[in-house]
Amino acid sequence: MLHILLLFSFLLSSSPAAAKDFCVADFKATQGLAGYQCKVPEEVVVDDFVYSGLNVAGNFSDISKSTINTSFVDQFPGLNGLGLSMARLDLSLGGVIPMHSHPGSSEVLLVTQGSIIAGFISSNNIVYTKTLKKGDIMVFPKGLLHFQVNSGPVPALLWSSFNSSNPGLQVLSNALFSNNLPSELIEKVTFLDELEVKRLKALFGGSG
Amino acid sequence: MLHILLLFSFLLSSSPAAAKDFCVADFKATQGLAGYQCKVPEEVVVDDFVYSGLNVAGNFSDISKSTINTSFVDQFPGLNGLGLSMARLDLSLGGVIPMHSHPGSSEVLLVTQGSIIAGFISSNNIVYTKTLKKGDIMVFPKGLLHFQVNSGPVPALLWSSFNSSNPGLQVLSNALFSNNLPSELIEKVTFLDELEVKRLKALFGGSG
Amino acid sequence: MLHILLLFSFLLSSSPAAAKDFCVADFKATQGLAGYQCKVPEEVVVDDFVYSGLNVAGNFSDISKSTINTSFVDQFPGLNGLGLSMARLDLSLGGVIPMHSHPGSSEVLLVTQGSIIAGFISSNNIVYTKTLKKGDIMVFPKGLLHFQVNSGPVPALLWSSFNSSNPGLQVLSNALFSNNLPSELIEKVTFLDELEVKRLKALFGGSG
Amino acid sequence: MLHILLLFSFLLSSSPAAAKDFCVADFKATQGLAGYQCKVPEEVVVDDFVYSGLNVAGNFSDISKSTINTSFVDQFPGLNGLGLSMARLDLSLGGVIPMHSHPGSSEVLLVTQGSIIAGFISSNNIVYTKTLKKGDIMVFPKGLLHFQVNSGPVPALLWSSFNSSNPGLQVLSNALFSNNLPSELIEKVTFLDELEVKRLKALFGGSG
Amino acid sequence: MLHILLLFSFLLSSSPAAAKDFCVADFKATQGLAGYQCKVPEEVVVDDFVYSGLNVAGNFSDISKSTINTSFVDQFPGLNGLGLSMARLDLSLGGVIPMHSHPGSSEVLLVTQGSIIAGFISSNNIVYTKTLKKGDIMVFPKGLLHFQVNSGPVPALLWSSFNSSNPGLQVLSNALFSNNLPSELIEKVTFLDELEVKRLKALFGGSG
Amino acid sequence: MLHILLLFSFLLSSSPAAAKDFCVADFKATQGLAGYQCKVPEEVVVDDFVYSGLNVAGNFSDISKSTINTSFVDQFPGLNGLGLSMARLDLSLGGVIPMHSHPGSSEVLLVTQGSIIAGFISSNNIVYTKTLKKGDIMVFPKGLLHFQVNSGPVPALLWSSFNSSNPGLQVLSNALFSNNLPSELIEKVTFLDELEVKRLKALFGGSG
Repeated sequence: MLHILLLFSFLLSSSPAAAKDFCVADFKATQGLAGYQCKVPEEVVVDDFVYSGLNVAGNFSDISKSTINTSFVDQFPGLNGLGLSMARLDLSLGGVIPMHSHPGSSEVLLVTQGSIIAGFISSNNIVYTKTLKKGDIMVFPKGLLHFQVNSGPVPALLWSSFNSSNPGLQVLSNALFSNNLPSELIEKVTFLDELEVKRLKALFGGSG
Repeated sequence: MLHILLLFSFLLSSSPAAAKDFCVADFKATQGLAGYQCKVPEEVVVDDFVYSGLNVAGNFSDISKSTINTSFVDQFPGLNGLGLSMARLDLSLGGVIPMHSHPGSSEVLLVTQGSIIAGFISSNNIVYTKTLKKGDIMVFPKGLLHFQVNSGPVPALLWSSFNSSNPGLQVLSNALFSNNLPSELIEKVTFLDELEVKRLKALFGGSG
Repeated sequence: MLHILLLFSFLLSSSPAAAKDFCVADFKATQGLAGYQCKVPEEVVVDDFVYSGLNVAGNFSDISKSTINTSFVDQFPGLNGLGLSMARLDLSLGGVIPMHSHPGSSEVLLVTQGSIIAGFISSNNIVYTKTLKKGDIMVFPKGLLHFQVNSGPVPALLWSSFNSSNPGLQVLSNALFSNNLPSELIEKVTFLDELEVKRLKALFGGSG
Repeated sequence: MLHILLLFSFLLSSSPAAAKDFCVADFKATQGLAGYQCKVPEEVVVDDFVYSGLNVAGNFSDISKSTINTSFVDQFPGLNGLGLSMARLDLSLGGVIPMHSHPGSSEVLLVTQGSIIAGFISSNNIVYTKTLKKGDIMVFPKGLLHFQVNSGPVPALLWSSFNSSNPGLQVLSNALFSNNLPSELIEKVTFLDELEVKRLKALFGGSG
Repeated sequence: MLHILLLFSFLLSSSPAAAKDFCVADFKATQGLAGYQCKVPEEVVVDDFVYSGLNVAGNFSDISKSTINTSFVDQFPGLNGLGLSMARLDLSLGGVIPMHSHPGSSEVLLVTQGSIIAGFISSNNIVYTKTLKKGDIMVFPKGLLHFQVNSGPVPALLWSSFNSSNPGLQVLSNALFSNNLPSELIEKVTFLDELEVKRLKALFGGSG
Repeated sequence: MLHILLLFSFLLSSSPAAAKDFCVADFKATQGLAGYQCKVPEEVVVDDFVYSGLNVAGNFSDISKSTINTSFVDQFPGLNGLGLSMARLDLSLGGVIPMHSHPGSSEVLLVTQGSIIAGFISSNNIVYTKTLKKGDIMVFPKGLLHFQVNSGPVPALLWSSFNSSNPGLQVLSNALFSNNLPSELIEKVTFLDELEVKRLKALFGGSG
């Protein structure tokens, strides 16, 4: 009666599950093109596939009145190599998720509380914007600028899903004004005027 | 002052947004390898990118005490070609999502209400199972058998995200017992006994 | 006359063949998302690209009267990164390859001896089944449950080709009954009755 | 002597070249997820694989003092399905290619005349900027904001290569200010002040 | 008892199997980037997934003393979109499969009868060659030149598997000598002498 | 005012840019399936993304009167994982780039000086050849044999772009005649005569 068990166990034991089915991130190893090296199968446990860090919001900012809590591969090792991840977005009254993009990843956004205005802008500058309420989902095609604004009378709770384990996030204001990109260059390539660039550099901690 | 506008508008108008940024499904056209042909850009509207069908549960089954409401590309045309989708799972008290797999798509599951036992089984027959509560997420690697069971005192509400616009869903009991696959064949390839196969064929509407 | 040789040799010597053309698995290195790190080109030999382990059958099981002999990347290092592999299936008289799936890989099956009934089941529970004889090939789309049964008067010899170097193999009976997944959970998510679950757990070595 | 010719011609005539080797865009057919349907092989000519439209600059803008001339799949049908394309960038004295990104495509830029300052900004807001001269190439990773500024005493001529047949191009100023995205929303999600938003809307032809 | 059946049937009937699980080629429709449009699911039958054309050899050539019989997507519609295919190679005594390559597809070759010398050449001009006997398999990395020669005292029977539904096949002698590529050009880019080019053009039916 | 900065900085600092946006090659680490492991983000500098090695030609060969200077990942670490690369081709008067192919990569060729005849050969042996002049571009579909010949009265300068970071390059004459592939085997699989094979082996440094 053990023969069939032995048969297929023999077959499978020669090629460990981690290689075939999943590749839990080994944070102690080097990082490659598409993610981390794999933990050895014997050390993989169910907690590698479960993440509880999204059950609370992060610290809110006075400016954006919002917070983003991510479960990308760096937080959730079981996602490594599987090509998907999530984030939790909390927006206070009047809160916004500033204009941003995800290089190379699309996003589906789910509203579980509150009401928001969400939108994205296509390559030919058409705006697709809509008020979303509880239970609605909206898709943001990969790499395009998009945003969310709490438009309701209560805090909004949103959940983003990405088709990348590590989607990246380029926030427009931070990209322009949180670093040492020379103001003169910014003005030339964005057509913003000098005073506005300097005001926003001060606001976002940039120099130069 | 209009020169730059014209410059870049000219550039962009020669290659419509639909081709570059997204490809909203044209349900009237033929379906290809990876999805639908694209709606012409002029007919694309914001509602192609928003879906409100998940804000209610479907009809519950007396047997599984659960329901699955999907927003795959067939329901949500804006997902076409973007490689992601969602589903809403409602489980009554004692409800289950039966053992199933998604051919070729991984899944991240979010619990927004209740408490469940969820698990998957690897190729080398190791079980990864865990009790999840509100705010927890769990990842199910592509193509592996997995399940969810409401283990709490209240209905459970779950949201699945997939890295495919059309992930497919093979429910084990239906695959075996809802069709005309001859009972003798089922017995041979599953090692179930004849009476059990016949009982389940009756339950799930199969013949043969 | 050596100039052109030197010219192109110089060009090519600066980027070793292993990186461009192939990546033979280095079994001593760590394993990553999609396979193994590469052997250094100087150590690559023709035997890395040839495998002779399929010229015999494995040990037969009394239960399934069959054996599977795989040449996946763990057995055949030259396959690493190339996205294909093979297996040899031997079925004695009355032998079966039990219901199983390959997470994320499709399969083409070639019959070189004997006659079998083969089939797969689609997501919407349609069965595609056919008797195959010597020289026939059949394709099993990725991730779907499928099986083979020797239906002829002689042993059957089959060859499977996969479009993955490490396709994975989830055998239904082993996935359900060869581990410690609690019987009560199995019953809930498969609708099998308690006695049958216990009988099969005993048969396949499971506990719980 | 014709036997071998016939042998292999027979083989190949049963599977036309267009399907295997290339898929020249049929602009009269519908457009799908990843590009156009294929011209029938009999109508494919060498001119489908050659494009002469980049041998001149486009019309210069007074504002940016630059012009972009693209050879994407919409201009160059032979690129369809092959996953690469090019563009020619001309910058007059003081000219700029404004801050922009390509959703999902990376870019390699070659300078064949003049001298420029080029740069990109990573997700964590680090600026990578460098002065490039004739013969230099620079790579811009997919989806990130980047720009070029003529920093030399002569016009600059640049050539961009993309790993997409239809890379898309989102110019920041046009995305924000060339459409009807309400000014109040822009201000909320970019932190720009009202006067500046209105000034730039006027400059770039936006409304609202 | 029918409830669960209805539940999941409803779910699945809204997204037909053809779109999720497979995409059988509709030879009457246009051909796209990666293959054919899909047959409507209602017309898909098991024979779309089975091919019996490889159970015989093709017509042998006096020159190469070999024949290739392919089951690519043009012969076997069920392969469409699944990314794999097969071919049967028969070599008489002294027969050869001439030097050739498959643009973009790797190959695994199985010997089921006879004995051959097989080999491939890497980008840096290293030759990997080996005598293969019954039961051996060898892998040929994508895009590289390779060949097979019957080296035994009996006819050889070989089976090739590819990780493409339509792998393409560029036979060196035919590519150079079966068309109207001017002899002078051939001589310049291959360094062959004029007489040899003309002799082979005569042999393979080329002109110019 | 620092709140929003802190908010998003916190978010981003937990997932370093190198993993998301790019993966600069760490030449000291092992090489994997698709390229090199990543340099740690702190050590990445702008010069990793800029390459100046193409601003000069290489050493010319008396035979081909040409030279190829590559900027593949081995020369230009910033390309690692991004899927594109370039090369500079210089052809003296009468110079040629011999018949060759790139396994698995397509190519776009730009002429910036001189005039050439360029061509490729499809799987069904059709020749696509054309005279190109300054500013013209031509695409060579992946894996197919192609060539360039200087047909003008001045040296030609060409720039190749590839959709691979490490495209590989198989030069026909070198593949056949620069190694120890036995002459008898070459004759059998190419139909070249013995004297010509021996002449070319002598020319290209082969033995056997």
